[in-house]
Amino acid sequence: MTMAVADMSDKHLSTQFDSELSTISGRVLEMGGLVESQVAQAVHALTTLSGDVATAVLEQEQRVNALEVEIDRDLSTIIARRQPTARDLRLLIAVSKAIGNLERIGDEAARIGRTVQRLLNAGVSSRMRLPVADLAFESELAIRQLRKVLDAFARLDVEAALEVLRQDDQIDREFDGLMRKLITYMMEDPRTISASIDLVFVAKAIERVGDHAKNLAEGVIYVVKGTDVRHTAQEAVASMVR
Amino acid sequence: MTMAVADMSDKHLSTQFDSELSTISGRVLEMGGLVESQVAQAVHALTTLSGDVATAVLEQEQRVNALEVEIDRDLSTIIARRQPTARDLRLLIAVSKAIGNLERIGDEAARIGRTVQRLLNAGVSSRMRLPVADLAFESELAIRQLRKVLDAFARLDVEAALEVLRQDDQIDREFDGLMRKLITYMMEDPRTISASIDLVFVAKAIERVGDHAKNLAEGVIYVVKGTDVRHTAQEAVASMVR
Repeated sequence: MTMAVADMSDKHLSTQFDSELSTISGRVLEMGGLVESQVAQAVHALTTLSGDVATAVLEQEQRVNALEVEIDRDLSTIIARRQPTARDLRLLIAVSKAIGNLERIGDEAARIGRTVQRLLNAGVSSRMRLPVADLAFESELAIRQLRKVLDAFARLDVEAALEVLRQDDQIDREFDGLMRKLITYMMEDPRTISASIDLVFVAKAIERVGDHAKNLAEGVIYVVKGTDVRHTAQEAVASMVR
Repeated sequence: MTMAVADMSDKHLSTQFDSELSTISGRVLEMGGLVESQVAQAVHALTTLSGDVATAVLEQEQRVNALEVEIDRDLSTIIARRQPTARDLRLLIAVSKAIGNLERIGDEAARIGRTVQRLLNAGVSSRMRLPVADLAFESELAIRQLRKVLDAFARLDVEAALEVLRQDDQIDREFDGLMRKLITYMMEDPRTISASIDLVFVAKAIERVGDHAKNLAEGVIYVVKGTDVRHTAQEAVASMVR
């Protein structure tokens, strides 16, 4: 009897519980895929100044929000019913934090969508030659990080998560360069100030997508290693998870 | 025997568990008080352009981060050991989300502190007459919201939480006004663009403090009523919790 209990808690032979855990992880990935495409679309709406694409981005917001609420509800049901411990509990805690980050990524995408609408309402046209190409590059970096971390989450791959942490400062550098460029642009032609401020916020939104990807990576490490590497200097993280 | 178990689960006679819950709530309030004073100090550093005060703000960041990590660790220990359900579980989930929000508020304060340092390094002096008084007003609104929601959390007071939700758009309006003012300021004197962009980010940071206060308020409602009012239009919230 004692053996059986030990077995159960170790490998939770409860296949029902296993399937609940894998269902909830799957929904996190679904939500992740959704916000990833939302960010890509939002930046596409900006670079092409397309109102239709911006509207499509905003329409996805409800689905993202609904997923957050549903997954959170499933989480508390599972915790109350299954009383998980150790790695199972860590996975559920990480899922709870992950969906918070994913929802915020969706918020950033929606913010960019609304910015495109505002720019169009203000009569900004492609002739204004806003420096959107740099924003597209910054967003490529952020989306690449997001994709990598979702993949790391799916496979609970610590090495891939560490790589995401290592590459975070690339986006920060890109953001700093963009700020300098936008400031020069505004000084050369003060009539562009209002539109440029909008781009400043877009650049910031994309940088935050990168920050959220970093938070997700820390979650993967927490699940697998049980180590909380938040607020830890980049150089120290690798040695903490060895 | 059955009675005793029912009693235990209802009122968790386990006074040890009660005391754990109240300890962890107390630590959330401690963390809340810390970030509240951090935001106030950061804005004070900005309005007085004081490098010393900015440094003090940044020094508190470590303490805030450490509290987040400690409370999160205590949370998973309690969940694993006590296997809470119903309102107890909701409280612990709300605590987990609350400390995430509080940590982000600390981040925003630190961001403002670093902005002050950058402005001072760039040789900005009080003679530049940056429109910091408006920022001080915006931050008063945000700090008031934060104080109110911490109080609502301490007393698990749904009415106070609802009031925080109702007043959130005041900060948003203040932020919009500030943006218009800063844009005018930059257009009138393009030499102020670089410093003004810094203030744009400060205004945004303060607005986000207000957003986090709103998230905290939603958490209080969730604990007491079991209702998830996130992503719900302001008008619909009051009827949902009745």
